[in-house]
Amino acid sequence: MTKIIAQLSISLDGCYAGPRDDDATNWFQSAEAAGFFRVTRWVLASMAWRDRQHLDGGEANVDDEIVAESFARPGAYVMGRRMFDGGERPWGEEPPFRNPVFVVTHREREKLERQGGTSFTFVTDGLESAIEQARAAAGSKDVAIAGGGSLVKHALELGLLDEIELHYVPVILGHGQRLLDVDLGAKEGIELVPERTIATPEVTHIRYRVEGRGPLELDTRGGRYPELAKDQGRAER
Amino acid sequence: MTKIIAQLSISLDGCYAGPRDDDATNWFQSAEAAGFFRVTRWVLASMAWRDRQHLDGGEANVDDEIVAESFARPGAYVMGRRMFDGGERPWGEEPPFRNPVFVVTHREREKLERQGGTSFTFVTDGLESAIEQARAAAGSKDVAIAGGGSLVKHALELGLLDEIELHYVPVILGHGQRLLDVDLGAKEGIELVPERTIATPEVTHIRYRVEGRGPLELDTRGGRYPELAKDQGRAER
Repeated sequence: MTKIIAQLSISLDGCYAGPRDDDATNWFQSAEAAGFFRVTRWVLASMAWRDRQHLDGGEANVDDEIVAESFARPGAYVMGRRMFDGGERPWGEEPPFRNPVFVVTHREREKLERQGGTSFTFVTDGLESAIEQARAAAGSKDVAIAGGGSLVKHALELGLLDEIELHYVPVILGHGQRLLDVDLGAKEGIELVPERTIATPEVTHIRYRVEGRGPLELDTRGGRYPELAKDQGRAER
Repeated sequence: MTKIIAQLSISLDGCYAGPRDDDATNWFQSAEAAGFFRVTRWVLASMAWRDRQHLDGGEANVDDEIVAESFARPGAYVMGRRMFDGGERPWGEEPPFRNPVFVVTHREREKLERQGGTSFTFVTDGLESAIEQARAAAGSKDVAIAGGGSLVKHALELGLLDEIELHYVPVILGHGQRLLDVDLGAKEGIELVPERTIATPEVTHIRYRVEGRGPLELDTRGGRYPELAKDQGRAER
C-alpha cells in the first residue's frame, strides 16, 4: 500500500540548512547553503547520487545504499516551490527524480516534461491536493515529500506523513532552519516509533513510523512521576 | 584518563524539557515537567534508576543497562544550580549520585554530606572551576556534567566536553528547552564523531566524541558543491 514518506538530513540540532537567506547574491556561498551542504555531504559523496547527476565516482558504502533506496521507493514526489526554484537549473535536462513531481506553489505554470521520466506539475490548491495527485500517479509505490524542509514540517504538522527517515549528521550548526520546529499545544507531542536504525561514521539513519499527535504519555509503567506530581512543592529556588 | 562527559535524553526536536516555567505552583504538573518526564520516561522505568531511588521493580533491558552504565562511569559530577534546587527534596537523604557533586551557583553554601557517598559542594567561581574540582575528586574515573540541559549546553559551547551521549526519544515536543541551541558563527559548526549507537524501541542511544568547533567542512571529496558554488546564480525565484 502506498505510504506518504519523507526523509531528510539534519544536524544534531535539527537543522536541514543554515539560516534562510533570500538575498544572497550567490546562494551557494550563503550560510544557508553552507549548512545545507554540510548536512547533505554524505549524499553528494554517494555513488547513487552522483550517478543520477551523470557524475563519475563517489563512494559505494552503506550510506550510498540508503541513497539508492531513497530513489527506489517513490513512484511520485511532492515538492515545495522554493526547492523547485533552487533546483530547476542545477538539475538540468534530466533531473534525478525519474518520476512525476508535484510542486506546491501559488503560481500557475504549465507542466514541464523532462528527460528520464521526471515531470513537474504545478499544484496551486495546496499540499493535500498535491499528495492526492501524487498518490494517483505513484501506483503501488510510495509518495515521497522531497522537501524542502518547511514542506516536510508542514506535512508532519498536518498529520499527513506515515513515515519519516531522519539522517542525523554529527554536526551542530547552532543557527539554521529546524525541521521539527512544529507548533503543538502544551503537554502535547507527536509520537513516533523507530523502525530501523543504521549507523555509519558519517550519519545515523533512523526510520520512524509516525504514530500521531496527542497528550504526552508520561511514566505510565509505575515510575515515580505520579507520586511526585501529587507533591505540591519542591525545595525553594 | 579522565574524560569530561555528559549524557542527556532529548526529544527528536532536541528538547530536554518543555518550555521553562518558573512560576508553576506545582512544577511537576507544568508543561516544562511534562516534556522532561516524557523524554526521561525510559530512565524512570529502568531498574537501575529505581534501585537508586529505593523503589522496587522496573525494567531490566538494554535501556536499563545504559542507565546502569551512566551511573558506573563518573567519579564525580558537576551540576547546575537549578537542577540541584529541583532535586534537593525529591532525592532525599540518599541521592542517586553516590559520588561528590559540584554545584555551579552564585550563592555560597556549606558543603552538604549525604548518605551513600553523595556530597554537594557549592562552587561560586564558575563552570571551569567546578570541572577542575570534580576532576581532582574523580581519580581515574570520568567527570559527568549531570545537567541540567543549560549547563551541558554551556559546557559544549565552551569546548569543555570530551564526549556527549544523546538519548533520542521518539517524540516531537514542538516547544521546549533545546540542548543544542548553541551560539556559533555563520558557516561554523561543532563537529562530532559517533562512537556507539544502540537502538531500542523506546530510545536511540548515540555516543559522540566531540571533535570541536570550526568552519563547516563541505563536500571535500569531489562532490558537486565546488562546481555549483562558482555558478553566480540560480533560477529566478
